Amino acid sequence: MPTPTTFAYNQLFAFTEGVFQAIGCPEADATLATETLLAADLRGVDSHGVARLVGYVRLWEAGRINAAPRVAVTYETPSTAVVDGDGGLGLVVGPRAMRVAIEKAQQVGTGWVSVKNSNHFGIAGYHAMLPLAHGMIGVAMTNASPLVAPTYSLDRLLGTNPIAVAVPAGEQPDFVLDMATTTAANGKLEIAQRKGLPLPEGWAQTAAGLPSTDANAVKDGGALLPLGGATGSHKGYGLGAVVDIFSAVLSGANYGPWVPPFVAFLQPSANPVGQGLGHFFGAMRVDAFRPADEFKAHMDNWITTFRQAHAVEGKHVLIPGDPERDTAAHRLLDGIPLLDAVVKDLQGVGAKFGVKL
Amino acid sequence: MPTPTTFAYNQLFAFTEGVFQAIGCPEADATLATETLLAADLRGVDSHGVARLVGYVRLWEAGRINAAPRVAVTYETPSTAVVDGDGGLGLVVGPRAMRVAIEKAQQVGTGWVSVKNSNHFGIAGYHAMLPLAHGMIGVAMTNASPLVAPTYSLDRLLGTNPIAVAVPAGEQPDFVLDMATTTAANGKLEIAQRKGLPLPEGWAQTAAGLPSTDANAVKDGGALLPLGGATGSHKGYGLGAVVDIFSAVLSGANYGPWVPPFVAFLQPSANPVGQGLGHFFGAMRVDAFRPADEFKAHMDNWITTFRQAHAVEGKHVLIPGDPERDTAAHRLLDGIPLLDAVVKDLQGVGAKFGVKL
Repeated sequence: MPTPTTFAYNQLFAFTEGVFQAIGCPEADATLATETLLAADLRGVDSHGVARLVGYVRLWEAGRINAAPRVAVTYETPSTAVVDGDGGLGLVVGPRAMRVAIEKAQQVGTGWVSVKNSNHFGIAGYHAMLPLAHGMIGVAMTNASPLVAPTYSLDRLLGTNPIAVAVPAGEQPDFVLDMATTTAANGKLEIAQRKGLPLPEGWAQTAAGLPSTDANAVKDGGALLPLGGATGSHKGYGLGAVVDIFSAVLSGANYGPWVPPFVAFLQPSANPVGQGLGHFFGAMRVDAFRPADEFKAHMDNWITTFRQAHAVEGKHVLIPGDPERDTAAHRLLDGIPLLDAVVKDLQGVGAKFGVKL
Repeated sequence: MPTPTTFAYNQLFAFTEGVFQAIGCPEADATLATETLLAADLRGVDSHGVARLVGYVRLWEAGRINAAPRVAVTYETPSTAVVDGDGGLGLVVGPRAMRVAIEKAQQVGTGWVSVKNSNHFGIAGYHAMLPLAHGMIGVAMTNASPLVAPTYSLDRLLGTNPIAVAVPAGEQPDFVLDMATTTAANGKLEIAQRKGLPLPEGWAQTAAGLPSTDANAVKDGGALLPLGGATGSHKGYGLGAVVDIFSAVLSGANYGPWVPPFVAFLQPSANPVGQGLGHFFGAMRVDAFRPADEFKAHMDNWITTFRQAHAVEGKHVLIPGDPERDTAAHRLLDGIPLLDAVVKDLQGVGAKFGVKL
């Protein structure tokens, strides 16, 4: 494996912001998109971060991303809204839509926003964490390009459709769950592919629907498997389906096999059932249920109890969000490591727009 | 295995209602508790139905269930509430709390209710389906007796903490996901135990935290494993944790290892962190997002697309809720099969209260 080069967060931020501005994002949008995208690199989800910048640019070049969208509420009640992303970057549409959810929660206790006409939004966890600063629980989901076969299916009908839930604590750090509803995220498959390693069982199937440990199985017409793998993929399928329905059937985005592919070399369906891809966001004020200090004290007790559990030799029980927060703390100080192939891609796109890495 | 005896739904209903009345449930409560409990038997979730009637009665005898609770809202905003179940049967408290969520959704688009001071509520799917008749999506969760070890934990800190989501369709039958956040529900383990069969891998671990296929592993100090099993139980752990937090940290119920055991021979904690166990309910009007006819037409298309997918030889792709609905249709006509041991238990409790099966 090539050794990665390390870049300071600020350096990557300036570069990425420059590229987003170069493709026509208004200044505020470029800043917001950069913050959203780099949250993945900071938190160690390297597959969803700056490594995808080139992918977003290619979609823009193909006319499939609107760099200056007018993100607007098109339908609403006191606790709900549908937001039309106007074909914008999900990195920008997502936080704008979550803002609507937060404002509704401030008014009536909770806010729930389903989004259509958007694109990939980076890591779900970033969006779910936005309500934390307002004393709220955050929920974020998105559908994604179809790579996943429902239980017994040979067809790929769902994306890796992640669910993220962030819960504020008191003195303890926040609880942040961010998970694909598949056994493994597509990024992990790509890593195995690059390294030429076999996959663990339960990650993928062949085009004929047989279990496979071949990292190329999905590329060769197979599919990723829903969470639960060989024994119980119906649960992951059900969760991925809920994400698809909340994100797209509620909003009017494309769902199932109609979700537009993230890659520019694959064309979206000529007969879409909706607009773009969809997200779903929720914000719940904890003090809409009980006084915030009570909630936070019990949340601290919950976290401490789980963290102090007796554990298997050499391990300890983690709270969802612990590993990503540790990585973020280190990477803010020590920089973000990027593989040479990623650096080369970024330099290429930088050269095209006169932005230096 | 003993052959089961089959009982008509109406016969079981009259019997169960009679028992609930005999322990002091007001008539309306007895009817509601029976409908909730028998929804499990109708839908084929035999572990959660009338077979548990004796368990509820024993808890009542131990003074741990209030047969005539005053279920009340103790805290609320326009879209949220906390409901105090007053120590009642979850079978009664659950539908009453969901009623509050539905009324809030009628007013402001969605309603979200966290419940404390309750008991086991039967199957989550029953509760999630209540909003369907109102043109709403339903969400239901509950925490449960600690039997599950978080990833790397030797301690049992979570219940099987189910999540259910029900979505109304148009001409197609509704979508109803109802899943434990463990690899397997405890009921399936009990069946393997009774039959003396080994467990599939990924269901359980020993007291030392080693993978086990021994059906007695949990009884011998081991634990059930979160969904994802040997490879990826952190996702099931995360989901089970969210259910625990939404159900109990939001409401003021007991959470984690403090959740009271369902069995009367195990005592609840002497130092509880809350009251009883907790549930979480949600209701979302689909027309709070887009016109209901549009939503339902796309939901029909979603369902048809998935159901018609190419499938593995001899199988077809199911929609969540399909198997349970089929079972319910058959059992309403042909009756509900009960194992001899269950019949004997029911006759015993019937004799005690002068109610004939």
